[in-house]
Amino acid sequence: MANKIRLGILGGGGNSLIGELHRVAALINDNYEIAGGVFSSNWEENISFAEEIGLPADRIYKDVDTMVAEELNLPESERMEVVSILTPNFLHFPAAKKLIDSGFHVICEKPMTTTFEEAKILEAALTKSKTVFALTHTYTGYPMVRQMREMIKEGVLGKIHKVDAQYYQGWINTLIHDLEKRKTTWRLDPEKSGMSCCMGDIGVHAFNLIEFTSGLQVKAILADLNYLYPDNKMDIDGTALVRFDEFTKGIVRSSQIATGEENNIAINIYGEKGGLRWEQENPNYLYVLSDDRPMQVYKPGHDYNSDISLDGTKLPPGHPEGIFDAMANIYKGAARAIRGESFNSGEFPTMSDGVRGMSFIEKSLESHLNGNVWVEIEN
Amino acid sequence: MANKIRLGILGGGGNSLIGELHRVAALINDNYEIAGGVFSSNWEENISFAEEIGLPADRIYKDVDTMVAEELNLPESERMEVVSILTPNFLHFPAAKKLIDSGFHVICEKPMTTTFEEAKILEAALTKSKTVFALTHTYTGYPMVRQMREMIKEGVLGKIHKVDAQYYQGWINTLIHDLEKRKTTWRLDPEKSGMSCCMGDIGVHAFNLIEFTSGLQVKAILADLNYLYPDNKMDIDGTALVRFDEFTKGIVRSSQIATGEENNIAINIYGEKGGLRWEQENPNYLYVLSDDRPMQVYKPGHDYNSDISLDGTKLPPGHPEGIFDAMANIYKGAARAIRGESFNSGEFPTMSDGVRGMSFIEKSLESHLNGNVWVEIEN
Amino acid sequence: MANKIRLGILGGGGNSLIGELHRVAALINDNYEIAGGVFSSNWEENISFAEEIGLPADRIYKDVDTMVAEELNLPESERMEVVSILTPNFLHFPAAKKLIDSGFHVICEKPMTTTFEEAKILEAALTKSKTVFALTHTYTGYPMVRQMREMIKEGVLGKIHKVDAQYYQGWINTLIHDLEKRKTTWRLDPEKSGMSCCMGDIGVHAFNLIEFTSGLQVKAILADLNYLYPDNKMDIDGTALVRFDEFTKGIVRSSQIATGEENNIAINIYGEKGGLRWEQENPNYLYVLSDDRPMQVYKPGHDYNSDISLDGTKLPPGHPEGIFDAMANIYKGAARAIRGESFNSGEFPTMSDGVRGMSFIEKSLESHLNGNVWVEIEN
Amino acid sequence: MANKIRLGILGGGGNSLIGELHRVAALINDNYEIAGGVFSSNWEENISFAEEIGLPADRIYKDVDTMVAEELNLPESERMEVVSILTPNFLHFPAAKKLIDSGFHVICEKPMTTTFEEAKILEAALTKSKTVFALTHTYTGYPMVRQMREMIKEGVLGKIHKVDAQYYQGWINTLIHDLEKRKTTWRLDPEKSGMSCCMGDIGVHAFNLIEFTSGLQVKAILADLNYLYPDNKMDIDGTALVRFDEFTKGIVRSSQIATGEENNIAINIYGEKGGLRWEQENPNYLYVLSDDRPMQVYKPGHDYNSDISLDGTKLPPGHPEGIFDAMANIYKGAARAIRGESFNSGEFPTMSDGVRGMSFIEKSLESHLNGNVWVEIEN
Repeated sequence: MANKIRLGILGGGGNSLIGELHRVAALINDNYEIAGGVFSSNWEENISFAEEIGLPADRIYKDVDTMVAEELNLPESERMEVVSILTPNFLHFPAAKKLIDSGFHVICEKPMTTTFEEAKILEAALTKSKTVFALTHTYTGYPMVRQMREMIKEGVLGKIHKVDAQYYQGWINTLIHDLEKRKTTWRLDPEKSGMSCCMGDIGVHAFNLIEFTSGLQVKAILADLNYLYPDNKMDIDGTALVRFDEFTKGIVRSSQIATGEENNIAINIYGEKGGLRWEQENPNYLYVLSDDRPMQVYKPGHDYNSDISLDGTKLPPGHPEGIFDAMANIYKGAARAIRGESFNSGEFPTMSDGVRGMSFIEKSLESHLNGNVWVEIEN
Repeated sequence: MANKIRLGILGGGGNSLIGELHRVAALINDNYEIAGGVFSSNWEENISFAEEIGLPADRIYKDVDTMVAEELNLPESERMEVVSILTPNFLHFPAAKKLIDSGFHVICEKPMTTTFEEAKILEAALTKSKTVFALTHTYTGYPMVRQMREMIKEGVLGKIHKVDAQYYQGWINTLIHDLEKRKTTWRLDPEKSGMSCCMGDIGVHAFNLIEFTSGLQVKAILADLNYLYPDNKMDIDGTALVRFDEFTKGIVRSSQIATGEENNIAINIYGEKGGLRWEQENPNYLYVLSDDRPMQVYKPGHDYNSDISLDGTKLPPGHPEGIFDAMANIYKGAARAIRGESFNSGEFPTMSDGVRGMSFIEKSLESHLNGNVWVEIEN
Repeated sequence: MANKIRLGILGGGGNSLIGELHRVAALINDNYEIAGGVFSSNWEENISFAEEIGLPADRIYKDVDTMVAEELNLPESERMEVVSILTPNFLHFPAAKKLIDSGFHVICEKPMTTTFEEAKILEAALTKSKTVFALTHTYTGYPMVRQMREMIKEGVLGKIHKVDAQYYQGWINTLIHDLEKRKTTWRLDPEKSGMSCCMGDIGVHAFNLIEFTSGLQVKAILADLNYLYPDNKMDIDGTALVRFDEFTKGIVRSSQIATGEENNIAINIYGEKGGLRWEQENPNYLYVLSDDRPMQVYKPGHDYNSDISLDGTKLPPGHPEGIFDAMANIYKGAARAIRGESFNSGEFPTMSDGVRGMSFIEKSLESHLNGNVWVEIEN
Repeated sequence: MANKIRLGILGGGGNSLIGELHRVAALINDNYEIAGGVFSSNWEENISFAEEIGLPADRIYKDVDTMVAEELNLPESERMEVVSILTPNFLHFPAAKKLIDSGFHVICEKPMTTTFEEAKILEAALTKSKTVFALTHTYTGYPMVRQMREMIKEGVLGKIHKVDAQYYQGWINTLIHDLEKRKTTWRLDPEKSGMSCCMGDIGVHAFNLIEFTSGLQVKAILADLNYLYPDNKMDIDGTALVRFDEFTKGIVRSSQIATGEENNIAINIYGEKGGLRWEQENPNYLYVLSDDRPMQVYKPGHDYNSDISLDGTKLPPGHPEGIFDAMANIYKGAARAIRGESFNSGEFPTMSDGVRGMSFIEKSLESHLNGNVWVEIEN
């Protein structure tokens, strides 16, 4: 193995869950060492968190600009190579832009930006910089999601005719039904959270999962969103009819008022020769459906899986791995790309996924606000 | 128990599966005796089938008109009281109309008629005749579907915010991908099968299940259908966005090209206080979801179930009952109504379900053909 | 189809669940007509129950002896052909003996007798009479249990190495923990219920399921029973280690104090080439396990199933059938045997199953009472 | 957070799976830093593996004795505080003994030793040293296993009456049926693998899971092992009847010839008031059974869980965690103990679990070899 990759982190301090998820994912597989970063805009919290996780203070910076400037002053052999962006959503774009322009590789949480326009600017920057950009649609890191993608590529389903993906949660019930709470939470404030709550936060995961696994691109969508209360300004539930071509259709269903649901992301893809089903809460099962043969249940770690699926499993069959391991697979893929060793297009979601995701979010709103009409997804 | 109810049967002869389902359902619970009927338009087949199932020939008739005429000549104490209509779809309406007008009770397979207009005529006839009319949306007969309805009535979910029902099958794959087969099968010929294949055959079941369990009425729908091939004249897949009111929305998803699916009917209803999930292929489980308490799994036969749910279970918990038992529950409910003993509005689907179902089918097509626009469901 | 078979019934009157199960099972498939019987030893109840289920009074008898005598006086073309024995356990033997000796076919609930000795006497009688004898180990009637048996016969598992079957229930908790209740219930009174409660009532089902599906015969067992309270006289929980040969072993686990379990009967059979799993509460799934291929899930009604499995399914895949349908399959098999049309040894459990089952029960007690030692099962 | 704990590792180099599992588990939660160790008895492999995972060479040692000697020469503030023992089984005892005697904390893979006698020696050493000793029965680290233990402690089940645990695998099929392979594999060579294969490797996990969750101690066992072939010297399948007291019984079932099973560890505990079920391959579900209420399904991360269960979950409900996370919880518990912060007896398995486990293995063999007789477990 080459030396460890020096990783910087923006955000994710304090008791941030996403921070823990990324740090653990980076450490699994022995590819990265955390070099430093900016964990908080509050200097005291920033520095004390760094100490808490065992990092020396000398590469903890007060903001991203300082970090970039100082790191560029370091010799290349010591300089951070890649930076993970875990900040609030509206800061993704400026940070990513700065980093890409400065020649750093980037691992970025989703949503990639707050608008499609920003996404396109980022894409142009990346085209110039030729650095690695990984978008952490974590679910694509599960071995059985990768297996699904590979089986479709191999033609197990034949021509795809129908796709149905959902992402159902119920957590917003704790906020939405109380007038005071829904008025004051940042999550339901468009100025703080961007244009969309449900489609932007989770619908886009389902959209991405469809394109990642099927290899198809959604051409147009017709969306119907639900705001539940007249005074609420952000969608908390939404369904999009999607079309790949005239005769290949699908559905993206997402909700944050699906009471009692936790992270119920699931996808069904049906083709001429078979069907595939995967559900995130039991991620180690891939169901292969057929009209005339018994259903098959694929599980990780078996030799019958594809190389990229097996690459994402650390232990033999029967040892359940989970979301930390899925994220670790994305980090592993990014590490390979950084080292120029990538072997498969599915090792991590890319800039292109980010651009299309932002279009999906914007077009969902456009469709809904124009009376639930068809609009085209842009690249 | 009162005397057995004399049941006539129209259709369902030969190796008809629907015939067996209804006969068995009628016999379970000891409420009915089969008095006679018309099992086939071919006299030889009609009479030989009657013999095969052990019926004497004297009340086997050549057609429905003859049957009605002859039965009316019998003393009331011998006359058929109720007639089950299991004929091809386009014959439902004339037979039901004739029977209702002649004072017979009717148990009718779905789709009730071929058009909404016919449905309204039938409804008017029933209003006059005051006889019992049961529509065999079989799934409503499952104990856990009944329990779902009762729990919603009792307020377990609070205000309902979202409904998602599906009916996915894959069987039409065996016909649809072959040009010759899809041109020649009666199922894909609008002259023989009515206006809709997928929405009419199965989508309407999902629609009915929503209204049956939720107690809500769909106000408007926006449907997108799929015909898969340019030369194919009937929908074989379709999704309808549905609205109950401005802020209560739902989805009806149905497909006959969901490869590998058998009869995957499922429903999720989410409300302010909880969620409920039921799946037809494991009909003896009702999942009760909550944001802050453990999921509960209700099963049939336990005292914690409602009266009407328990009424539909014959054996103690742990003895799985199935679709024959569900249909038998509908027959049991109809028997009670015929005897004037009904105790709950959910014992069987009614004329009103049939009328709304026909509107759903017609409006799905209308919405689709007009470019996926919102249309209102009529009563 | 030939004429219907004339069926007599002993027991199962009132609100007997087993009575309803058998009557419905007999009527499904159109093979039988109920000719009469003895539904209760109380004449009033006997006659009023007959009326309730629509039977004329003239072939309702006061006891089995009268029934046999009177029926033998009828011309053969009217006489009952087969009699179902649903009485309390201790009456099975005398009734079955009388009926067999008098030339009637018999369908008998389990346990077949109260002792192994009685079972052997019955077997000898049957050898003489050459009539049909079906023992209603209902679970063998499920299509996927039959499929399991056929797949093993075909060699799907190769040599069998291990068998593990369970039957767990929790119902006796409602009686056993209360001193008064456990002293007074007939179920825990050896004089009324026979020698064993748990092994006799449910353990024997698990034992039978093993032999039915595997085609193997248990050679010896070592059992450990639990009575839970010093004053309780009957086993309410028991595990038997079983041996087929020196290197093929298994376990029969049964309990009536497995709190919260309903009818959790399940079987796992493992062989050189694969494994099979079936669970009664989800009876329409058969799991086919392999060390190197994805698990397969077989479901009823598909062409990939064996003839005898398909013979037990009335509707296409996806229409769940249940325990009534399983019992109906046993009745269907018995009807074929009565008509001389049987095509497979697995269509119903036989006298031999009854004899071995009684030996299993007796030997379980013998093993336990002698300090958990190995004892041999007898034929 | 205090400074990171300096961790040494014995074994687990090369492509060792157990090595990866422990390293990842140590890094999750930011408690440990790997200080050095002995990864292989081959110096080249040892040093190159250290480099591969990014460790400096100066604290890589040629053997455990050298490591102990050199580390003791370091100032206490730099010295390894705890050492993980991941070597082949027969080396566990001498390494653990040396480390304990020298005042190091120890995290040890199971089986703890090769004999009960060694286990007792280790226990005595620990009593003297008063250091922390954690035995990695990984399954106890799952949040829902911890929840199970806490619920039983709280009395949710009332008095326990029956326990049934299994650990079924099929992997040894690839070796056992081939004469040459089974003769030559170290796993089936008692000189290399210790006295037992199946009971020692996996049966003991099931045994431990019972005692960990129930809080009960097995008093006596009666075991029946299977060697499958006359020339095979080690058990590859075994069932033990277990007794807690005269009326509380259980079963430990384990197999390595359960074809198609992966790591099918599962436990059912039944008490006066309820039942609990957990299955390792779907570790995030805990089933709470009741005779008269609906089954409940507990999932990790919800507030309704106990403190120690919640302590083992890093993300909100719906984000599946797996075996790496379970092991990380054991490391977290050990870290707390090392820092003197432990809050619950269930944070990790202890020396006492190791001692009882070794007795279980020895007594299983003793029982079997003496003709399947009852023998008592020793402390």
